[in-house]
Amino acid sequence: MSVDEIITLDYGSGGKKTSRLISDEILPRLENPALSELGDGAVLPGADRLVFSTDSFVVTPLFFPGGDIGKLAVCGTVNDIAMCGGEAKYLSLSLIIEEGLPVADLRRVMDSVQRAAAGAGVQVVTGDTKVVERSRGDGLYINTAGIGFLRHPGLSPKNMCEGDAVILSGTAGDHGAAVMLARGGLLDAGEAVESDCAALGALAEAVLSSGAEVRCLRDPTRGGVATTLCEFAESSGLGMELFETDIPVRPAVRAACSLLGLDVLYCANEGKLLAVVSAETAETALAAMRATDAGRDAAVIGRVSGADGGRVVLRTAAGGGRILQKLAGAQLPRIC
Amino acid sequence: MSVDEIITLDYGSGGKKTSRLISDEILPRLENPALSELGDGAVLPGADRLVFSTDSFVVTPLFFPGGDIGKLAVCGTVNDIAMCGGEAKYLSLSLIIEEGLPVADLRRVMDSVQRAAAGAGVQVVTGDTKVVERSRGDGLYINTAGIGFLRHPGLSPKNMCEGDAVILSGTAGDHGAAVMLARGGLLDAGEAVESDCAALGALAEAVLSSGAEVRCLRDPTRGGVATTLCEFAESSGLGMELFETDIPVRPAVRAACSLLGLDVLYCANEGKLLAVVSAETAETALAAMRATDAGRDAAVIGRVSGADGGRVVLRTAAGGGRILQKLAGAQLPRIC
Repeated sequence: MSVDEIITLDYGSGGKKTSRLISDEILPRLENPALSELGDGAVLPGADRLVFSTDSFVVTPLFFPGGDIGKLAVCGTVNDIAMCGGEAKYLSLSLIIEEGLPVADLRRVMDSVQRAAAGAGVQVVTGDTKVVERSRGDGLYINTAGIGFLRHPGLSPKNMCEGDAVILSGTAGDHGAAVMLARGGLLDAGEAVESDCAALGALAEAVLSSGAEVRCLRDPTRGGVATTLCEFAESSGLGMELFETDIPVRPAVRAACSLLGLDVLYCANEGKLLAVVSAETAETALAAMRATDAGRDAAVIGRVSGADGGRVVLRTAAGGGRILQKLAGAQLPRIC
Repeated sequence: MSVDEIITLDYGSGGKKTSRLISDEILPRLENPALSELGDGAVLPGADRLVFSTDSFVVTPLFFPGGDIGKLAVCGTVNDIAMCGGEAKYLSLSLIIEEGLPVADLRRVMDSVQRAAAGAGVQVVTGDTKVVERSRGDGLYINTAGIGFLRHPGLSPKNMCEGDAVILSGTAGDHGAAVMLARGGLLDAGEAVESDCAALGALAEAVLSSGAEVRCLRDPTRGGVATTLCEFAESSGLGMELFETDIPVRPAVRAACSLLGLDVLYCANEGKLLAVVSAETAETALAAMRATDAGRDAAVIGRVSGADGGRVVLRTAAGGGRILQKLAGAQLPRIC
């Protein structure tokens, strides 16, 4: 597969085509050790243990059950830093506003940014505001970049070993299902499905300081749990095994996914993390995660298997095995 | 003046309405000392002399004489850090691609990012890629955020004193005029007008280490020289006097501005800085700036006057005086 001549939505899915675009068109031009790690953020060489990360948020609709683009923009970047073992401290906030946005909507988003930043213990210290013509945007796009201090160095999927446990910090697919329902105008169905959008700093700190041997953390956003595990497998060269019946999924999310024809394993999460820890310390990690708000439904959902070099296999409820690949195409565009 | 109920393009002009939007809707919610300085970037408290800045680039067309959105995105953030007395080291790069962008265009932009980053001595260490549907973007928007190390602390327009000299590092209005000509498809007129887009790290370092007493630096991008000087005056409470005949302007830019009905003092620059320095050391500063590539046309264009508290007065070629205000409305939307 090579990059097509025209960018399609598939290139923004967070899956195969996104990887290809980055590896073919971006990395070769900018290559350096920090960037090439392709982690959620960069640990800066020679910069006194700084972690640096960025994310642009282009979600539609701007407001959805459980959150909005402002909360997402703060939590998303805070979480990327937390996944690198960093404590987020400072954010930049850049707004690309489409002409015609009601100021009331902007106020609501900024209130949400304020609350989320206070909740996550970060300060917005610099920013930028641009306005684009009608039909050149979608109400509001937000970019945040964040600086954090590295508290737990050395996290990387390259550290994974055969036998390691894979822990998911809670239920899968909530954010993706909530946004897709909101986009379909399907909110009236009880609104039981809410985005899990949340800052994960405290959860990450809990597991990283629990004494468990943590190999790596990552928050499975675009592309979902399946795509993140494929990235781990690719990066480590080790296979992974996932047990379908052990993956926590809310009944309402499962129902929504059936309705919408989505695979919950590829649905985005915005308040969950995947942790790979040594088998011996999995219980320690689980206990530490479950003691936090964001991690109370944490569960071991799989293991690192030496056998299937680089493959992620889902052991299904029916006893079968299904090879999982990175998201191909655009199951869930524009949800974070 | 209060904020209207609907965001119009005027709010993105970098002038009065942008200021109002920021001061009414953003600052009150996020207030902290670093943000409230409203400098080009933030000097982080307690963070070992770090400078942090961000900018989103929404220029149309993506390619214009003298540069493109990629070069702009690197230089813009590098320059914001340089204006704070920092040396830029690390950039994030976030792409918001509109579905349908030719990959050839993306390659060209990324080549330009690569060259500009190498030229400015910065590394792109983290990034993000999003794709939005057709008519929800404009080819490509780029956000960069940057981290630098503070080399020259304490720069602020609040340091300005009566009698200080105002130096512009070169000709005014080149970028704004070039982009407006390109937007009008008026390139065939000899292409004599080129954007000045350039990294200003070496120029800033030259003046800051020259021994001159430098009060503050700022690059007059959106809103141009006039708007930046109004910001200085507002921030310091001191008046400023500007001598029209001393402001260097290329003849082709002057002609383009006449053609397009633009005021060159409000045209954006992307490779110039304004420096306020003590009158006694103005010659030292000038000499240091002129010894660099980016500053060879540097000139004293005005002075800080105690008299007109907070006002910027242009002494015109005809001998009159005209009060300059921040850009009102959208003279030049989407040019950086």
